[in-house]
Amino acid sequence: MFVDLNSDLGESFGSWKMGNDDQILPVVTSANIACGFHAGDPLGILKTVRKAVELGVTIGAHVSYPDLVGFGRRNMDLSRDELIADVLYQISALDGLAKVAGSKVQYVKPHGALYNTIAYDQVQAAAVIDAIKMYNPELVLVALAGSNLVEQARAAGLKVVSEAFADRAYNSDGSLVSRRLEGAVLHDSAFVASRVVSMLKNGGVESIDGVFTPIQADTICLHGDTDGALEMSAAIKAELVKNNIEIRPFVNKA
Amino acid sequence: MFVDLNSDLGESFGSWKMGNDDQILPVVTSANIACGFHAGDPLGILKTVRKAVELGVTIGAHVSYPDLVGFGRRNMDLSRDELIADVLYQISALDGLAKVAGSKVQYVKPHGALYNTIAYDQVQAAAVIDAIKMYNPELVLVALAGSNLVEQARAAGLKVVSEAFADRAYNSDGSLVSRRLEGAVLHDSAFVASRVVSMLKNGGVESIDGVFTPIQADTICLHGDTDGALEMSAAIKAELVKNNIEIRPFVNKA
Amino acid sequence: MFVDLNSDLGESFGSWKMGNDDQILPVVTSANIACGFHAGDPLGILKTVRKAVELGVTIGAHVSYPDLVGFGRRNMDLSRDELIADVLYQISALDGLAKVAGSKVQYVKPHGALYNTIAYDQVQAAAVIDAIKMYNPELVLVALAGSNLVEQARAAGLKVVSEAFADRAYNSDGSLVSRRLEGAVLHDSAFVASRVVSMLKNGGVESIDGVFTPIQADTICLHGDTDGALEMSAAIKAELVKNNIEIRPFVNKA
Amino acid sequence: MFVDLNSDLGESFGSWKMGNDDQILPVVTSANIACGFHAGDPLGILKTVRKAVELGVTIGAHVSYPDLVGFGRRNMDLSRDELIADVLYQISALDGLAKVAGSKVQYVKPHGALYNTIAYDQVQAAAVIDAIKMYNPELVLVALAGSNLVEQARAAGLKVVSEAFADRAYNSDGSLVSRRLEGAVLHDSAFVASRVVSMLKNGGVESIDGVFTPIQADTICLHGDTDGALEMSAAIKAELVKNNIEIRPFVNKA
Repeated sequence: MFVDLNSDLGESFGSWKMGNDDQILPVVTSANIACGFHAGDPLGILKTVRKAVELGVTIGAHVSYPDLVGFGRRNMDLSRDELIADVLYQISALDGLAKVAGSKVQYVKPHGALYNTIAYDQVQAAAVIDAIKMYNPELVLVALAGSNLVEQARAAGLKVVSEAFADRAYNSDGSLVSRRLEGAVLHDSAFVASRVVSMLKNGGVESIDGVFTPIQADTICLHGDTDGALEMSAAIKAELVKNNIEIRPFVNKA
Repeated sequence: MFVDLNSDLGESFGSWKMGNDDQILPVVTSANIACGFHAGDPLGILKTVRKAVELGVTIGAHVSYPDLVGFGRRNMDLSRDELIADVLYQISALDGLAKVAGSKVQYVKPHGALYNTIAYDQVQAAAVIDAIKMYNPELVLVALAGSNLVEQARAAGLKVVSEAFADRAYNSDGSLVSRRLEGAVLHDSAFVASRVVSMLKNGGVESIDGVFTPIQADTICLHGDTDGALEMSAAIKAELVKNNIEIRPFVNKA
Repeated sequence: MFVDLNSDLGESFGSWKMGNDDQILPVVTSANIACGFHAGDPLGILKTVRKAVELGVTIGAHVSYPDLVGFGRRNMDLSRDELIADVLYQISALDGLAKVAGSKVQYVKPHGALYNTIAYDQVQAAAVIDAIKMYNPELVLVALAGSNLVEQARAAGLKVVSEAFADRAYNSDGSLVSRRLEGAVLHDSAFVASRVVSMLKNGGVESIDGVFTPIQADTICLHGDTDGALEMSAAIKAELVKNNIEIRPFVNKA
Repeated sequence: MFVDLNSDLGESFGSWKMGNDDQILPVVTSANIACGFHAGDPLGILKTVRKAVELGVTIGAHVSYPDLVGFGRRNMDLSRDELIADVLYQISALDGLAKVAGSKVQYVKPHGALYNTIAYDQVQAAAVIDAIKMYNPELVLVALAGSNLVEQARAAGLKVVSEAFADRAYNSDGSLVSRRLEGAVLHDSAFVASRVVSMLKNGGVESIDGVFTPIQADTICLHGDTDGALEMSAAIKAELVKNNIEIRPFVNKA
């Protein structure tokens, strides 16, 4: 058994710091790196990219709606052409910085509101899928496990990886419990760590209302910007190792 | 004899239009395309890139300080690392969009205040030069004819092309007359056209105070955003043809 | 009989020009001035404000979602608190510039996607209404004639003015025909001018599918940024004068 | 004897946090609140303004060059008209939010590069002075103690308050030691606290090269965004109290 661990990185902006890239990067196998639209200035992105390359972490483009002040967490009604161009611009910018650092972008993970929207909105999803195919059809798309997007992107010819969340509660239909509801985010490191292992071994988790819910977890998202994130990440990693689950990137490094 | 004609393109931003890319592109051999820092949104840039590729016009990155509201025309005191990363980000974004359109960035022309500053400021110039070399040492740098930058960039190993301005008056030291002074910008199409030809044939122009001033003109900048720009561009092109001066790109298309 | 004429102004941004404020301002009685979120930089706004004051045109805050590249035309899912603060910030900024020019903001007209959304979305509408009341409960709100917003804002204690569009086709329920559909925008100046007069005299217009549709028109929106805008505005004004319909601001100048 | 304590506040931006407004506000008498150009989004600014009003802290506009990614710390070559309009827009926006919270802007403190530049650049200084006078000639300007700006602004008719820095080393000409040099920033709370008291009692400090340097300190700047900032602020406050130096705002609350 094996699994990939990913985290959102490069999310500082100018003088504002977010997350702890230097401490999270050694833990993960895949780095979703901000491209400047929800977070990330060129110098900060470049530093994170260099550190990822140094540690052999796979680089993915964490593409977003253009909304710095809202951190890409607010739905935006972009036209298909705008969304395609915005995604292309972001992948391109990050890929060039990765090239300078001796690597390249190997996957795309939409961020925030865009991630949630295209899980079910097939029009915006098609724009993101088409942008990826236009840029490089070998890029992998990271999609919410169980969402419509997984099938839509596969049908369009993309490689897709299903993502599960270590510290988020699930509804019994496989969707994430809204952050606005109590119990949506789990905080107990030990519990989260054992839940990740059981999710992988059993192919699912118990939903917030107590029903076993199948979750295909090719990659697990670790949060780097919350209190206790490092401790939780370490706990998950240790529990995976203890259970002989190999941690390895979902893409092969070329 | 031959010369390249370049123009600043892709300078619209969202709903705001600037210049007339569709009419200037057929006239030029090299397109300095905005990268989003002084102008250009992703969708607008992509459209200009596609049109340039369709017409076989060489694509250059028109990199700038990050100053949309000031259109990159105000000096900014960026640190070396910030400037390197900003230049890399811009070349990368444009190069990716060019790749999607079936082409690539082949040169870099700094824009506005950055262009003027690095003509003589060796610290900022070194940052731009290093960024270009980090991204792709085969990229050509377009520099103000006669400026310190030409020699500095060549000494650093870059290919450099000297640029002259068709419609700008020159001081006798080869620098441009400041736009704030009367007579800085020439408006008579016929005069400008014959001046371009004589600049190429004689290797220089008469300065604003009446002295012959040597100007090495590998490429001539045509302005696309002013009244009468199209007429002036057509007049220059016609005068060059009449004088058997070949118009061809300074870089060979791969 | 009387009516107010309003137009969207101050919509340039830095080097990018939009509309023709100097020519539209003498035609209108109320100026919806951009506040920097969809358009308008401080210097450009200040110039438009000064010109409006000089001509005795009432100043209104044309508040928007924060989306320069999208010109405020894309729906954004702001939280109630974000929307309140964004509206307050914009009214404040414009009111201060108006104070410097010897006047003040007297009304608020939401722009673009925000205008269309709050016509029917009561949650976002409530945020805008509350922001206006927090800033100055004497400010008038300009709302789409016949929309839910008219009643919602009145019930909340605001003064509301109903707005009709000179050059837009109406559905039979009183809503505007979507710009995406053919026939949504009318281009014949003479027809538009006589339609405005008949709308005022008859209290409505014929809808796109041929049904008389009541429209309460306290103020008529003239577009300043389209081809032929000046000619159409002049035609409307002339037709109003010819029909003895007084053109006067909906707010009294203090 | 008495002195004012000020700090830079409201410097978060969207999801990015900076400083600790809730803990610094109870310590200071004057709050320099970001206006959105180097930091501060409308909702964050409004929250800080409300908290300041609740605690009776005087509100000042912390105006900046328009440079979010550079946090207003990079010189920018704005024209006089641009700088005037930018300053007016920022004061206006903050004053409106202060009005909503039941207060008003009572002073202006330029931020970062603008602060440093106008201490000696009389052209940019004149623009800032004129903007303040245009908005409200009763507003107080906070200027670097001993700088040219103090006299220039007084000669122009503004009320000026001289500012000293608790934790910054001084050159013997009264200027601040550049942050790029070793020893520029002092970190020992006890030493800084006693130095503030001695600065007030003796009318100066020992410069970095050991010379007594006169410093007129009407207000002392406390930094809220550095490690140990709260402890240092508390130490300074305690030392002032112990030495019977009254801490009171430099402006009287209306």
